Amino acid sequence: MEIAKPYLLFLGDAPDALAAKTAAGVVDWRRDWCVGQLRLPGCKADVGLPDLDVAGAVAAGAKTLVIGVVNAGGVLPEHWIDQIVLALESGLDVASGLHGRLSSFPRIAEAAKRHGRALHDVRHASERFATGKGVKRPGRRLLTVGTDCSVGKKYAALALEAEMTARGLDAEFRATGQTGVLIAGRGVAVDAVVADFISGAAEWLTPAADPAHWDVVEGQGSLFHPSFAGVTLGLLHGAQPDAFVVCHEPTRTTMRGVPHPLPSIGQVIEATVAAGRLTNPEIRCVGLAINTSALDETEARATLDAAAAVHGLPASDPVRFGVGPIVDRLIATFP
Amino acid sequence: MEIAKPYLLFLGDAPDALAAKTAAGVVDWRRDWCVGQLRLPGCKADVGLPDLDVAGAVAAGAKTLVIGVVNAGGVLPEHWIDQIVLALESGLDVASGLHGRLSSFPRIAEAAKRHGRALHDVRHASERFATGKGVKRPGRRLLTVGTDCSVGKKYAALALEAEMTARGLDAEFRATGQTGVLIAGRGVAVDAVVADFISGAAEWLTPAADPAHWDVVEGQGSLFHPSFAGVTLGLLHGAQPDAFVVCHEPTRTTMRGVPHPLPSIGQVIEATVAAGRLTNPEIRCVGLAINTSALDETEARATLDAAAAVHGLPASDPVRFGVGPIVDRLIATFP
Repeated sequence: MEIAKPYLLFLGDAPDALAAKTAAGVVDWRRDWCVGQLRLPGCKADVGLPDLDVAGAVAAGAKTLVIGVVNAGGVLPEHWIDQIVLALESGLDVASGLHGRLSSFPRIAEAAKRHGRALHDVRHASERFATGKGVKRPGRRLLTVGTDCSVGKKYAALALEAEMTARGLDAEFRATGQTGVLIAGRGVAVDAVVADFISGAAEWLTPAADPAHWDVVEGQGSLFHPSFAGVTLGLLHGAQPDAFVVCHEPTRTTMRGVPHPLPSIGQVIEATVAAGRLTNPEIRCVGLAINTSALDETEARATLDAAAAVHGLPASDPVRFGVGPIVDRLIATFP
Repeated sequence: MEIAKPYLLFLGDAPDALAAKTAAGVVDWRRDWCVGQLRLPGCKADVGLPDLDVAGAVAAGAKTLVIGVVNAGGVLPEHWIDQIVLALESGLDVASGLHGRLSSFPRIAEAAKRHGRALHDVRHASERFATGKGVKRPGRRLLTVGTDCSVGKKYAALALEAEMTARGLDAEFRATGQTGVLIAGRGVAVDAVVADFISGAAEWLTPAADPAHWDVVEGQGSLFHPSFAGVTLGLLHGAQPDAFVVCHEPTRTTMRGVPHPLPSIGQVIEATVAAGRLTNPEIRCVGLAINTSALDETEARATLDAAAAVHGLPASDPVRFGVGPIVDRLIATFP
């Protein structure tokens, strides 16, 4: 599955900027793939692209309408369907990361069929996977892991890809969640895969490659999250990373959505090495990506310095200070 | 989902006894639920039940035809369909643990609809699950875990249920795999659940209960199996067991289906406690269930004695010597 580019980003009637964060993520990392944004009356989000209607986007070369907004409940509301059908009739494919399938709406399914257009439901894997084999593959892999969900694993992976590429390394972001798949134009939402095939899906996503190639794999969940640790472990075993980066949000006190306390960075390093060793005995931590957005700059630097000193690892905030020190360490460790 | 009892067990044209091991498992543990076996010409399996045709089984009170045999490839062959359709026409439901859905065969789907009968595809969860909450629930839970797949976790759990019930404990087997679901008449094949919901499915399967009640939960996979460890971890977190029993096959040299070496019993105890603590800080190992079928009786007893001494835990072979010592320990630990 490969989503055709460039994109027209659909913002619908997003009630605020946060509702359109999928679109914002695509613009942050793949601005060149976006010809414009399509907003309905009442839309309060703006991702800084030219406002285009479907006809204008087609004229500008768009190939896919990407649903870049979530509605309350994650459901596609009826009043978005006219524009989606119009896009299909005008020759665009449509891609969505919402829970419900685009094809579950009869008007959408019928328009796609009539006009021969593709519907990409990136939350639902269309591939059939084998079970994981656990056998070491050539090529190098880096995985971002987290003390919790939603601590910046996708952002860190994309920042690492950008910095590694800028340094001349052969690096490619590998998406494992629906927003990541829209940003990368392909990938697999591993949390939507049937449980038996989690590690197999990760193996499929990061196939054998040139020995100098790096797959930079977006992590999911946390080994310490009671809802999702199974996904995290299957992804770790399938990705068989040579290197990992721990992502952390230092002001969070409980795991997202549950009352459990956050593990320490040290616990996450230890658990990731212990479990990851099963498919890559050489696995090692190469850095810490700490989200300091809740801290002022002095506090942020002090937090990063303290974490770096405690763990003997480069620590940075990818958004605020970039991932340069982590890539330095990666290059030094894997010459 | 509850499969109506009693059962007529369909053995098809099983080429050998192993092909009918699902049926054999049902007979081993739920003989009272079985009115007979239905065999096609050429069938080489015999699970020791009266041979009945569909009409005879209906007369004997059967409510469900259970597909107790696997075909090569796990696919339902065309030449079984006549008997399945006849069963539906005669008022039986049909239950299957095969990969393909019964309803994917038009003649079967149509007959079920026409006669208002249920089709139970136990490998495909029909429930919708929530994500796991990780919050401690009342009631007690025991989980069987393994050094590998296919080392006797289901058998051990069923043997524990039987022994605990015989001692007057309130104990119930909770099935997590397709054969287990057919034996229990309900449950969920957790490896067939969408990855995001593994621990949620386990929570659903073992709900809050009377403080003295024991759910005896069938384990899946192994924390050390590179294909399936994610399922194992999600099940462990969702089941939040108070007690676990490690199942082991001492002559196996590599993990089933992959070249990885087997972990030691000690490694499995350590990893299970470390991971299980997340949702139940009091988790502890109460025994070892060791499959000694490849050993003679002297070797078997020596193996069990050595394991018991090394780990300070009761060790038994559930098939050969029963699980009495493990239940002794369980009762002593949880008075």
